[in-house]
Amino acid sequence: MTKKSLLLFFTVLLAIAAGPTFAQDAPAYPAATDASVFVFNTTLFLISGMVVMFMAAGFCMLEVGLVRAKNAATICVKNIALFSIAGIMVWLLGYNLIYGVAEGGFIGKFGIWGADDADWAQTGYAASSDWYFQMVFVATAASIVSGTVAERVKLWPFLIFVAALTGVIYPIQASWEWGGGWLDAKFAFADFAGSTLVHSTGGWAALAGALVIGARDGKYDQTGRVHAMPGSSLPLATLGTFILWLGWFGFNGGSQLALGSIDNAIAVAKIFVNTNMAAAAGVVTALVLTQLLYKKVDLTITLNGAIGGLVSITASPLEPSIGLAVLIGSIGGVIVTLAVPLLDKLKIDDVVGAIPAHLFCGIWGTLVVPLSDKSASLIGQLVGVVSIGVFVFTISFALWYLLKLTTGVRASEPDEQIGLDKAELGMEAYPEFSPA
Amino acid sequence: MTKKSLLLFFTVLLAIAAGPTFAQDAPAYPAATDASVFVFNTTLFLISGMVVMFMAAGFCMLEVGLVRAKNAATICVKNIALFSIAGIMVWLLGYNLIYGVAEGGFIGKFGIWGADDADWAQTGYAASSDWYFQMVFVATAASIVSGTVAERVKLWPFLIFVAALTGVIYPIQASWEWGGGWLDAKFAFADFAGSTLVHSTGGWAALAGALVIGARDGKYDQTGRVHAMPGSSLPLATLGTFILWLGWFGFNGGSQLALGSIDNAIAVAKIFVNTNMAAAAGVVTALVLTQLLYKKVDLTITLNGAIGGLVSITASPLEPSIGLAVLIGSIGGVIVTLAVPLLDKLKIDDVVGAIPAHLFCGIWGTLVVPLSDKSASLIGQLVGVVSIGVFVFTISFALWYLLKLTTGVRASEPDEQIGLDKAELGMEAYPEFSPA
Amino acid sequence: MTKKSLLLFFTVLLAIAAGPTFAQDAPAYPAATDASVFVFNTTLFLISGMVVMFMAAGFCMLEVGLVRAKNAATICVKNIALFSIAGIMVWLLGYNLIYGVAEGGFIGKFGIWGADDADWAQTGYAASSDWYFQMVFVATAASIVSGTVAERVKLWPFLIFVAALTGVIYPIQASWEWGGGWLDAKFAFADFAGSTLVHSTGGWAALAGALVIGARDGKYDQTGRVHAMPGSSLPLATLGTFILWLGWFGFNGGSQLALGSIDNAIAVAKIFVNTNMAAAAGVVTALVLTQLLYKKVDLTITLNGAIGGLVSITASPLEPSIGLAVLIGSIGGVIVTLAVPLLDKLKIDDVVGAIPAHLFCGIWGTLVVPLSDKSASLIGQLVGVVSIGVFVFTISFALWYLLKLTTGVRASEPDEQIGLDKAELGMEAYPEFSPA
Repeated sequence: MTKKSLLLFFTVLLAIAAGPTFAQDAPAYPAATDASVFVFNTTLFLISGMVVMFMAAGFCMLEVGLVRAKNAATICVKNIALFSIAGIMVWLLGYNLIYGVAEGGFIGKFGIWGADDADWAQTGYAASSDWYFQMVFVATAASIVSGTVAERVKLWPFLIFVAALTGVIYPIQASWEWGGGWLDAKFAFADFAGSTLVHSTGGWAALAGALVIGARDGKYDQTGRVHAMPGSSLPLATLGTFILWLGWFGFNGGSQLALGSIDNAIAVAKIFVNTNMAAAAGVVTALVLTQLLYKKVDLTITLNGAIGGLVSITASPLEPSIGLAVLIGSIGGVIVTLAVPLLDKLKIDDVVGAIPAHLFCGIWGTLVVPLSDKSASLIGQLVGVVSIGVFVFTISFALWYLLKLTTGVRASEPDEQIGLDKAELGMEAYPEFSPA
Repeated sequence: MTKKSLLLFFTVLLAIAAGPTFAQDAPAYPAATDASVFVFNTTLFLISGMVVMFMAAGFCMLEVGLVRAKNAATICVKNIALFSIAGIMVWLLGYNLIYGVAEGGFIGKFGIWGADDADWAQTGYAASSDWYFQMVFVATAASIVSGTVAERVKLWPFLIFVAALTGVIYPIQASWEWGGGWLDAKFAFADFAGSTLVHSTGGWAALAGALVIGARDGKYDQTGRVHAMPGSSLPLATLGTFILWLGWFGFNGGSQLALGSIDNAIAVAKIFVNTNMAAAAGVVTALVLTQLLYKKVDLTITLNGAIGGLVSITASPLEPSIGLAVLIGSIGGVIVTLAVPLLDKLKIDDVVGAIPAHLFCGIWGTLVVPLSDKSASLIGQLVGVVSIGVFVFTISFALWYLLKLTTGVRASEPDEQIGLDKAELGMEAYPEFSPA
Repeated sequence: MTKKSLLLFFTVLLAIAAGPTFAQDAPAYPAATDASVFVFNTTLFLISGMVVMFMAAGFCMLEVGLVRAKNAATICVKNIALFSIAGIMVWLLGYNLIYGVAEGGFIGKFGIWGADDADWAQTGYAASSDWYFQMVFVATAASIVSGTVAERVKLWPFLIFVAALTGVIYPIQASWEWGGGWLDAKFAFADFAGSTLVHSTGGWAALAGALVIGARDGKYDQTGRVHAMPGSSLPLATLGTFILWLGWFGFNGGSQLALGSIDNAIAVAKIFVNTNMAAAAGVVTALVLTQLLYKKVDLTITLNGAIGGLVSITASPLEPSIGLAVLIGSIGGVIVTLAVPLLDKLKIDDVVGAIPAHLFCGIWGTLVVPLSDKSASLIGQLVGVVSIGVFVFTISFALWYLLKLTTGVRASEPDEQIGLDKAELGMEAYPEFSPA
């Protein structure tokens, strides 16, 4: 035996000893045991993260299409600013708060994340790729908020709220489950890609904001009548929805957290299919339901049908059969269709319909998990939904209220009248087209 | 020999025995024989499928930019609805119709697709990833139709047509070739990524619709004069074209159906290059030709030049040299430039120019295949083009006609006048900007 | 020993002998030595190239949002045309000019690129995938130019300039460094993903154009006052910025040029993180700075803050710590904020702010490299910045001037007044909305 053949022998031996064994992977392809596993896992995070990052553009287009032209530039500022702030806050605080938690614990570590790839051999992926993926998730939660409180929240207080949400509020509750904290350890709470941890969290924060800030001037009059304030560009809102749909393949698919084996590749593929089918079912349901209820199809509700379907399947996109995924998404479509008038009855002014789509469908998606995932229990799911809801809503409400008392959270009446673009930015989104 | 080293020995032995051998792959990198092959192939489907899915947004933006503002919201509804319906129909009917066909047969099996990944060892990729990829292809064909019949087709009849197209019409003809049916078995018909199977199919269905539904009010007057009805947002149309161009790398590249070997990786890369060059040649040709013909460059025709080039190369994006790809795409650019006035002469009202770009260029691309792919014959290509054309056009025409007799297919004259957005949705795409 | 086991033995032996060894890759995953390395590297080029290709849409949307409506269709023509021309010129001339240069040389070979994948064993990736990736880079440089000279440059002279830039000017200077020419060989010039080679090159060409063509009519009056000409659609400009941000992950990440090992995967992941953080820092800095300077946040400058941050990190996106990446991007944000009024003082009319973002930040990013990359020296960086600057600016200026003397480069005053859309295309971008 030459030295090289000995090296070969021990290299492969080591690989088989140390790497995961996939005996069940059948004869045709033995499990990969070399660096390709690591590269696949890292690539999954990076590619998934890229399309989730692009969801920031999706939210921006959805929101800019659903606000009036006089607030369109401001919503653009908010969206690119919140994505930027999320990145910085997750670096400074968030990541270690999420993943620095002790097993079964309530809060992680404070401190800057160090981009440490030293323990790659244990993780099986580049630490930076995971950070990137988690960071874009956090930004998603913040994007949800901006749509609800659009057209009247002041820019800087909103950005302060975003910093707190992405640096502290989201990370603490996420640590309870994804960091291995108490929800994961004691209640086997199951939330695969974040129906509750991301979408309901964003929704609760948005609801708190809507309550503290109040409705737009003129949205609800004294007699209780609702005055529609139609969005300025439904094509951009539609584009935004398509971008979100695209991004969701990364959102849910990437949450498999691994790609480098046959089992993982099949899982990611199944997730893609279920994710798509839930969205499709949400769209078709919203189409049919608005036709039946209002005798006309409603584009905005249809778009929210897609998002409602997507949020609903996010808590468990792998386990359900396709038929169940269709059902879950379809009920998501029902929820957004029925909840929009409900919120109006409660005079909760949610400009883009984010509360129905992200909060209500997030709860629905989380509670339905035990139907397909036998490791989850309805009790465990309820504990997760309620505890995260109480935590996020309470802290968010307190923070919005504190901002109201200090900086103020709401544009002045004249500013709201002329629009935040002129008032806060001194510019117009469409200077040549805006109605005089 | 320890037990582990024996295990190692037989594992690798098995891999070499069972996996494909790539002796020609040269010394530097021996062929991968482990799960990485499977993961690569699956990843190709998923990533390609994602960008092809995004083509739904591309079509939507192209179409919304080329219709008048009063029909812009409706075209958005149609595009997100058709993509959703395509997913559901391919699940319920389409997939098994395509791939359940007997070798040399005419029609596949009826029945819901079961997401069965059990035979992964034979396929070499996750079944779900293939389903996802095929599904987004079907949606593409439906997207083509919506552009042609925009601005006057009624919403629900259109959606019924989409359900039939994506659940039955497309799948049956696709089974003839991609399912291994009679066109593949008896005529060696060659259509790598679907110049005929996807694009001409969409084009024939669109042509049938245009004929049955008729032209928009006022498009052609009694004296035969054509009245231009310029699109409401050329920037969105341009964005849509760029998105389609992006998606086409997945459309053609993913049609290699495998990535996990050196040969396949090189093939996918060559396809990317040829796809890009055909599109580029289509653009430059349309630019120059409209300048020569009309003394002015025409943006809309230039955008269609890109699409025409892309459709033209789709039947054989791997085999041609770059020079030939440029030539094929360039003639695609000529076709769209010359066919637009031709259709107008025939009073066939194709709102976005989908018939020239997808049908005519699809035929051209299919017929030119034998020039680079010696396994294909002109006769075989003609048989494929004609048989699929006759089948799709006849069934589509009959179905549009049936819809005309039953539900009606065309908005009423006053509805068309005020625009489908107000008439069918009760909303406006740009409520603040639309001309009074 | 059977024949098969011998085959196995020698195959693996060969792999270990010929492939790169990654002893440092640690025990958990031995280095991949089979075709998967090749496939990963190729895939990195293809996926990165796809999102960089999509940057063409990003530039188009950014520019179409920042020009006035009367020039919006023309900027769309320019953007899709320049991407097409870049592809054709890089094929005909550019690629061999870049990579056909002798070590330490000044100019490469003239001749069409042949798509030759024969030497794949040496390169470790598909030649076509590398060509694709390099081609979209070249297009990026041309995109930069179109924004600066928008609203007054004539279409065809602009396209002639693009052909020269993408076929000759960019390739020659790129060969000096990325082709292994004199800058690389003698000065160890370091420009990882092209702060200078791509972005400053585009910026110098744009500056030369702005000087030769002159400012838009009415931009600067005799008294030296600047008249703002606000962009027609800030939402589209924002969308464009998000698309560019997305594309930059491919731009910088793909420039690692390899993915198929643990080290490379970690490097790409680190690049993603630094790229994102520099952009985020650029945004936050521009936000705060415009608030402080002008008492109002400026959306356009904020968008350029993102781009400025991205350009700044492009010369060295791997080496810096995250903190340093934040600092580098933040200073990019300062540069764009302060340079916009500076250019106006010099009466250099840069419609989209491309010169600050791409040229100034490109210089900054290049000069700061030695801070984190000890293989680079400030002298070497200065030599690169100056030599490329002098070369690109001189040739570009001469070419613009030559065009001015021959074809003319500037639309006539009446044409500029009515807008290039009507004058050069005979159409309108938004025919229903444009102000009368």
